[in-house]
Amino acid sequence: MTRDVKEIFIYDTTLRDGSQGEGISYTLEDKLKIVKKLDSFGVDYIEAGNPGSNPKDLDFFKEVAKCDIKSKLVAFGSTRRVGVKVEEDMGIKSLLFANTPAVAIFGKSWDLHVTDIIRTTLDENLSMIEDTVKYMKSMGKEVIFDAEHFFDGYKNNREYAIESLKSAAKAGADFAVLCDTNGGTMPWEIENIINDVLQNVNVNIGIHCHNDTGMAVANSVVAAKCGAVQIQGTINGYGERCGNANLITIIGNLEVKLGKKCLDNNSISELTNVSKTVAEIANMTHEKSYPYVGASAFAHKGGMHIDGVNKNSISFEHINPEIVGNERRFLMSEVSGKSTILSSIQKIIPEIKKDSKEAQEMVDILKKLEYEGYQFEGAESSFELLIRKHLGKTKEFFKVIDFRVIEEAAGIKSAYAMIKLEVDGKEEITAADGAGPVNAMDKALRKALTVFYPELKDIRLTDYKVRVLDPDKATGAKVRVHIETSDGEATWGTVGVSTNIIEASWKALLDSIDYFLYKEIDRK
Amino acid sequence: MTRDVKEIFIYDTTLRDGSQGEGISYTLEDKLKIVKKLDSFGVDYIEAGNPGSNPKDLDFFKEVAKCDIKSKLVAFGSTRRVGVKVEEDMGIKSLLFANTPAVAIFGKSWDLHVTDIIRTTLDENLSMIEDTVKYMKSMGKEVIFDAEHFFDGYKNNREYAIESLKSAAKAGADFAVLCDTNGGTMPWEIENIINDVLQNVNVNIGIHCHNDTGMAVANSVVAAKCGAVQIQGTINGYGERCGNANLITIIGNLEVKLGKKCLDNNSISELTNVSKTVAEIANMTHEKSYPYVGASAFAHKGGMHIDGVNKNSISFEHINPEIVGNERRFLMSEVSGKSTILSSIQKIIPEIKKDSKEAQEMVDILKKLEYEGYQFEGAESSFELLIRKHLGKTKEFFKVIDFRVIEEAAGIKSAYAMIKLEVDGKEEITAADGAGPVNAMDKALRKALTVFYPELKDIRLTDYKVRVLDPDKATGAKVRVHIETSDGEATWGTVGVSTNIIEASWKALLDSIDYFLYKEIDRK
Repeated sequence: MTRDVKEIFIYDTTLRDGSQGEGISYTLEDKLKIVKKLDSFGVDYIEAGNPGSNPKDLDFFKEVAKCDIKSKLVAFGSTRRVGVKVEEDMGIKSLLFANTPAVAIFGKSWDLHVTDIIRTTLDENLSMIEDTVKYMKSMGKEVIFDAEHFFDGYKNNREYAIESLKSAAKAGADFAVLCDTNGGTMPWEIENIINDVLQNVNVNIGIHCHNDTGMAVANSVVAAKCGAVQIQGTINGYGERCGNANLITIIGNLEVKLGKKCLDNNSISELTNVSKTVAEIANMTHEKSYPYVGASAFAHKGGMHIDGVNKNSISFEHINPEIVGNERRFLMSEVSGKSTILSSIQKIIPEIKKDSKEAQEMVDILKKLEYEGYQFEGAESSFELLIRKHLGKTKEFFKVIDFRVIEEAAGIKSAYAMIKLEVDGKEEITAADGAGPVNAMDKALRKALTVFYPELKDIRLTDYKVRVLDPDKATGAKVRVHIETSDGEATWGTVGVSTNIIEASWKALLDSIDYFLYKEIDRK
Repeated sequence: MTRDVKEIFIYDTTLRDGSQGEGISYTLEDKLKIVKKLDSFGVDYIEAGNPGSNPKDLDFFKEVAKCDIKSKLVAFGSTRRVGVKVEEDMGIKSLLFANTPAVAIFGKSWDLHVTDIIRTTLDENLSMIEDTVKYMKSMGKEVIFDAEHFFDGYKNNREYAIESLKSAAKAGADFAVLCDTNGGTMPWEIENIINDVLQNVNVNIGIHCHNDTGMAVANSVVAAKCGAVQIQGTINGYGERCGNANLITIIGNLEVKLGKKCLDNNSISELTNVSKTVAEIANMTHEKSYPYVGASAFAHKGGMHIDGVNKNSISFEHINPEIVGNERRFLMSEVSGKSTILSSIQKIIPEIKKDSKEAQEMVDILKKLEYEGYQFEGAESSFELLIRKHLGKTKEFFKVIDFRVIEEAAGIKSAYAMIKLEVDGKEEITAADGAGPVNAMDKALRKALTVFYPELKDIRLTDYKVRVLDPDKATGAKVRVHIETSDGEATWGTVGVSTNIIEASWKALLDSIDYFLYKEIDRK
């Protein structure tokens, strides 16, 4: 039953329950990439689809069978239907077609669902559970029984809920998983109910939580502490409504806080990478505030906190960020003081010391710009360019001779930009249209520059944010534009400020390209 | 000590600790708006700034003193510094300048912080706590003592941590707040430690959690269950690193799940509105997956879930969404609360009834536009214009024949707009320059229209906000522009959405003028 000797089995359902999240849909290729990532991470079970309700999932199971993975693949489906023989049930047949070593069978444990939703008798429901588990065991499958709405069921009719687990256990289920399907259960209820179940049912217990009350992580970890040995969830907590339990946070807590082993050796240092990679594949924003793995998780802003961390990092950090593959950041801001600025300066000229006049001058420049509305948090690359300029370490990669942006007619649908620039005495003029003026400008600029710097082809803007700084000045207000750019490996942020949104965007765009060129061209 | 008779006091620090969140900064105007919102919601304490470390906070305290609010304002600062007399400490003086009924004093309860960070003796630290609390009480303040790093301190040196609370209690503190400053504490530790504290220290206990392990909400609610009577947190969980405890989720859990009263009567139905309004002011995305209040919190995607909810809503929803002012959504076929829309319709045609086809049609139009990114909260005037259009109750006050916006040259400092329009067969062409393209457009449009409608002279834009809706699409992303306009008496909000920021602004501008003309001219 084990992959290695582990105390807790991690059961990932990012591809099945996670895909119920609003805005999430995976291609077959996406799914294969996620499976490989989860496998190398050391996840024990990967629930990959419901071949009964989604026929496309069968294609996926066919493809994934060609991959060499150690994680156990799981096909998900319900107990046999009311009044149907298990071996004749279409859903059950589809499950077998998936040809996975393990199957997850969900069934009802809340009496209300039996009588009001699937509308059968309480006894027939127990037979449906028992028949299905027994049949799947006879087909050689490892069987995980998901007791849907277990906690709501328990609160409504304790005996019946327990009975549903006993039916699965009697039929040979390898795990009975208690599901908080509606996500409304509190941690102390989880504790009391699991303790009761463990005393009354002889089976390995798992837990499956949803986050409707913000408790999914807490409930999962409390369950593990009480003796649940399988934890179900999704990477980054993707899932219907408020999401499933976030496995990334749970694994961080289990391995680092509780000392419960649940991954392969050393995999915990991949936690940040796994979280980011899956976000990238799912095309979801990787939230800065994610516990353990977010870009802000170990970012310090207040001067006092930065001072404290410098004196002794445990004073303001619950763990060393390296453990989970994340890193400490001191946010560039007026309050963060000289030492952050110094480390940026030293990237360019390592000899410069803390008490040098250059460091003090950069502090003054930073203060002046922050007063004008700049903010370099998340735009450290623009700050690096400023340092270069101040230190006289710049290079002119290109010169903009002219540009124009034109919007025409009421009911406008597009904008036009024309740009003329010069590189080493050669001129280039381009034009582009776009979804808006900034988009047109971005396209025209890149088109012109790629003639000289083909490397620019691979970079793309990944984030664009606009903040109006003094909204009461209405359309005369200053705006701050933040841009994030990626070349597929690194990501960097730049910023521009102006009363003119086009100019602010233009500044941030130019910085993003300059930064890349210093990084790529200057280095050669 | 009480605002009403409540079981739990809610202590909001959105404006102080929340502003440490990456990407968050408030203008003075933003802060006043948030205070008013929190006050009408029924929050007991509003921690609004640290006048000692941020002199700008004093301006705010001066302004807010002019508002008539029931919530208690709190100024935040540290105990006196090492070796300084409390009445001579500059930070303490700044706190008193804030002139608030209550002060929060943070002090050390972790021995490591005393010896390694502020570098003094354990005894001196206890005196610092006692002196400061006693002095503040003598100045007539309600005093909240924030025991920084309490849980880490307790685990390292239980006796000293408890001693720090006793020093505060002895000096007359009204609350001692146990802070999980680094956010690394598990719920069962919170439970055990609070139980110990309650048995050993005679003072009202509060809790202040951070979310570094995804436990901030669980820890706060567990604390309340154990007997903590003050809960500190921020709206939407804004705050440094992984954020503070999310008061929105906590209040949902306390009021709905635990039945513990913590708001004014009926305020719980404002939960969604408060969460969205503060997000809008902070210019942060309102996450769809937020527990209780997110747009997806009661959204059903799977066919089986939709079927279940239709048969009996408790089958797949932990609570009725109306309790917290949210609504159920079926992601394929949207259903919505008609009655709000009906009341807007009846402003224009009072005879229209709830079951009319017009009401249903407007529901459909609203859903479609919301899907496209429109949001009519704070932009009800745009929605009223939509209703007029749908009911055929429109009037063409003016017709835009053409317009152009031009930006020139790198290093641009201004933009130009030309507008040609027609009123009653008479044409008018104007041009204007501006701080940016939208500003130029606004000026040109108003200049042309004032020729025909001199009343427009008195209206002015009072707020202009831009929100990028899908930031990962970078400069091709959709933007939503919110404009607020005032004629000196009334204020009205309008909205425009487009991938083109100029078009989005243009739509919102036209709506703001149209709305005014209906209001002023049509009435005559």
